[in-house]
Amino acid sequence: MLPAEFIKSLQNLIPSDRLYFDPVDCYAYAYDNSRKFFPPECVIFPLTTDETAKTVRLCNQFKIPLTPRGRGTGTAGGSLAEQGGATLSLEQMTQIISIDPPNRALVTEPGVLNETIQAAAKPHGFFWPPDPSSAAFSTIGGNLATSAGGPHAVKYGTTRDHVLGLTAVTGKGDIIKTGCYTTKGVVGYDLTRLLIGSEGTLAVITEMTLKLTPLPAAKSGLVAHYQDADSCASAIVSIMKEPQGPSALEFLDSGSLNLIRARNPELLPSDSQAMLMIEVDGTEHEIPETTAKLLAACQNSGLLKAVSVQNTADLWKVRKTLSPLLRDIAPKKINEDIVVPVDKIPRLLAGLSALCKQYQIANVNFGHAGNGNIHVNLLIDPDNPSESERAYKCLDQIFDLVISLNGTLSGEHGIGSEKRPYIGKELNDATLTLMKQIKLTFDPNNILNPGKLFP
Amino acid sequence: MLPAEFIKSLQNLIPSDRLYFDPVDCYAYAYDNSRKFFPPECVIFPLTTDETAKTVRLCNQFKIPLTPRGRGTGTAGGSLAEQGGATLSLEQMTQIISIDPPNRALVTEPGVLNETIQAAAKPHGFFWPPDPSSAAFSTIGGNLATSAGGPHAVKYGTTRDHVLGLTAVTGKGDIIKTGCYTTKGVVGYDLTRLLIGSEGTLAVITEMTLKLTPLPAAKSGLVAHYQDADSCASAIVSIMKEPQGPSALEFLDSGSLNLIRARNPELLPSDSQAMLMIEVDGTEHEIPETTAKLLAACQNSGLLKAVSVQNTADLWKVRKTLSPLLRDIAPKKINEDIVVPVDKIPRLLAGLSALCKQYQIANVNFGHAGNGNIHVNLLIDPDNPSESERAYKCLDQIFDLVISLNGTLSGEHGIGSEKRPYIGKELNDATLTLMKQIKLTFDPNNILNPGKLFP
Ligand SMILES: Cc1cc2nc3c(=O)[nH]c(=O)nc-3n(C[C@H](O)[C@H](O)[C@H](O)COP(=O)(O)OP(=O)(O)OC[C@H]3O[C@@H](n4cnc5c(N)ncnc54)[C@H](O)[C@@H]3O)c2cc1C
Ligand SMILES: Cc1cc2nc3c(=O)[nH]c(=O)nc-3n(C[C@H](O)[C@H](O)[C@H](O)COP(=O)(O)OP(=O)(O)OC[C@H]3O[C@@H](n4cnc5c(N)ncnc54)[C@H](O)[C@@H]3O)c2cc1C
Repeated sequence: MLPAEFIKSLQNLIPSDRLYFDPVDCYAYAYDNSRKFFPPECVIFPLTTDETAKTVRLCNQFKIPLTPRGRGTGTAGGSLAEQGGATLSLEQMTQIISIDPPNRALVTEPGVLNETIQAAAKPHGFFWPPDPSSAAFSTIGGNLATSAGGPHAVKYGTTRDHVLGLTAVTGKGDIIKTGCYTTKGVVGYDLTRLLIGSEGTLAVITEMTLKLTPLPAAKSGLVAHYQDADSCASAIVSIMKEPQGPSALEFLDSGSLNLIRARNPELLPSDSQAMLMIEVDGTEHEIPETTAKLLAACQNSGLLKAVSVQNTADLWKVRKTLSPLLRDIAPKKINEDIVVPVDKIPRLLAGLSALCKQYQIANVNFGHAGNGNIHVNLLIDPDNPSESERAYKCLDQIFDLVISLNGTLSGEHGIGSEKRPYIGKELNDATLTLMKQIKLTFDPNNILNPGKLFP
Repeated sequence: MLPAEFIKSLQNLIPSDRLYFDPVDCYAYAYDNSRKFFPPECVIFPLTTDETAKTVRLCNQFKIPLTPRGRGTGTAGGSLAEQGGATLSLEQMTQIISIDPPNRALVTEPGVLNETIQAAAKPHGFFWPPDPSSAAFSTIGGNLATSAGGPHAVKYGTTRDHVLGLTAVTGKGDIIKTGCYTTKGVVGYDLTRLLIGSEGTLAVITEMTLKLTPLPAAKSGLVAHYQDADSCASAIVSIMKEPQGPSALEFLDSGSLNLIRARNPELLPSDSQAMLMIEVDGTEHEIPETTAKLLAACQNSGLLKAVSVQNTADLWKVRKTLSPLLRDIAPKKINEDIVVPVDKIPRLLAGLSALCKQYQIANVNFGHAGNGNIHVNLLIDPDNPSESERAYKCLDQIFDLVISLNGTLSGEHGIGSEKRPYIGKELNDATLTLMKQIKLTFDPNNILNPGKLFP
């Protein structure tokens, strides 16, 4: 129950049309893509950095948990008010403040959708490389707070590689400015990247200066089908050895292909057991050169066929059909996004298949193979508790496998509440303790997204 | 005076051939490129992370200041034992631990020279992009601690863009592991980049995983001469508008050219008042295309001539003669490395010239124009106190000018002790206070490089 005095002060600060208290209204802010459900006791929609700072200070005064939220598309439960209190929705801060083509910079508020940023940059010949598949409905604030990546990260890197500076409100309610407007700068500690990927636990990001990248002149693509996962995995390694690499390299395993085939048999050859979608971008001159090299790298004894695709939209068609299909057949699937070094993908896939066999769990894998970032899906029947138990045992061993291959537990989804129990497998105690202390330095009363990210 | 008990414990920890107490030995560790002089009371040469951790813990126990040091080429006084105590020289940790071409990663100890890393990566077709002009004699540890950049930062970014993970010893003596071995990873806070550029004030970096980049297939270059700084500055803006930009874009002003001409008249046309050195790298196909576009971008009414250079080593010849010449004529020059957005370079150069005229200070400017990172040199006679006073007044206004143009005080040298008084011009109080608190989180007794970086 929120204290009456807190509610009164909040109402003095934020007009009533930007404050929800009605549980019905608040319910719409109770879930995200983790499929957990935690309704906040109120939802606050600030319009400015200053309003945000005043709100955070008020929550501090009353020790009210405050959960920042973009559009709630996160898959790790990060935007859920797990401990009650208030949700701070940034979705109404939707101004693009400036676009500056000569300096390749765009300054924006956090509630702007990724897709809107791309649309604003395009007429000037630029794009912003981070491209989560949720670009059409996730905010730039959420993208920064999770350091979102996407298929093009193999060539362009992830969010943390494309931000110059921030304005943010710490858990104390202080307004800080990090980074700078220029492409070089070493004045003080790099707080910009400390906040990127911090999942709303350190500060609320209220303004960001994004670094824009020139749009490639042309794109082209290849599709390759393999008779087994092994030969496909070794083709991934060969492709990534090429100096002029792909701009996207997506992998689909036999489980994924079977799902797609069951609904859309015409999209895929019947004998394919593993598939690569390869995109190449660059100048008109580069494309044929790079495509030829990557086509050569695809060749091995397990290759069924490799063909070039003129329209890259076709390339993504197969991939796009997959997520809804997966959700249909297994609404409670466990969906991970582990990463291993590229040359360990063959061992990862072999290990995954052995573990899933051992625990008798249906498993579908696909993802951003060029970064070694594989979405591992364990398909479970929610009405079968023993299956669920087996699946979590299997998952635990999958994480051990990943760590033993020098990998990481999450490539893009983050920890949130979903992966908290496992973080100690990757980070040693001293590192975790230090991170907790940093959290308290930014947020001494632990009001900002409390409980998230730490075990 | 170091306590006897501290000395005894240290001698139990580190063999005598890796411990200096003799003031004569310590003197060699008393200076860097800032030309300040602070002899440490002892110099310690650890060989491992573990020895480093034990040393830091011992210094904590006795509250002895400990200054990490690579090769002392820093220009900001960062490696000097300003408050006495011990210097921790990492120069004997010189093992490259592994090179992993399929995963484009190199793991190394901190004392390895930048040039040695390049030599190790090259046979595999890779390089490590950060290329300070001091590559032949600065350590990779120093490069990370300062987030070093160089001429190629315009295309490839600086150190913080090229590191995957670290092992480090905090000011408390805890061993932390940050980042990961893969190109994607979002588990916990980004401590890797927090340590990069932290100038030895948070932790001692004892091992780093570097991300390697494929060597470009070919390089080529252009030299352009202008009749005045204005037309040269507008050419910089035009060049940086090209989507396929240069791999280096260095600028020399008339002061620089006059210095070079006085000694080497044959190197330069007599009428040139500003010069650009433009390097292009890429595939054999890209080079002519990009060079033609950049040559077109060089054209304006102030252009005297623009010619292509086949051997890019020639390109750097002129530039390399400059630094020793500058040191000869003005051993006490004030050497800054401010940055402004590229399209503000014309206003910066005009403003610099007005200020130097007003304060009657001789001034030479050159640098990494593609990043807007200009080395501003105020040439002063050390025996003329009024000149020195005028120079510092002028400098103060130069910094104000830079900030008013949305720039930053340092692009690569960092703060150290040199720029401490000015940091408040760029960072607001809340941000500075937070940085100080982060410092104390890593280093509660303030033993690690105490006094550096903060006003
Ligand atoms: C269909 C689908 C596809 C997806 N594909 C990808 C993908 O390819 N790559 C990828 O990386 N992710 C992907 N995601 C996950 C998700 O879209 C991203 O994590 C996205 O960045 C979240 O943005 P959001 O606005 O929805 O943030 P939310 O989900 O609302 O919040 C995410 C986290 O950020 C914090 N936060 C949000 N805004 C701020 C702010 N302004 N200041 C501080 N903290 C803040 C929240 O507290 C929370 O911890 C996908 C999700 C879906 C549903
Ligand atoms: C001729 C010349 C040219 C230069 N050109 C450039 C240039 O183009 N670009 C550029 O960026 N710089 C340049 N510099 C500056 C300097 O070379 C760089 O800052 C370099 O990175 C310093 O490396 P170092 O090993 O000498 O470090 P040092 O000078 O010994 O130390 C620099 C800082 O890093 C800290 N440090 C060193 N090692 C560690 C470690 N392992 N862990 C934690 N902290 C550590 C020190 O405490 C200090 O604060 C130049 C210097 C010279 C003399």
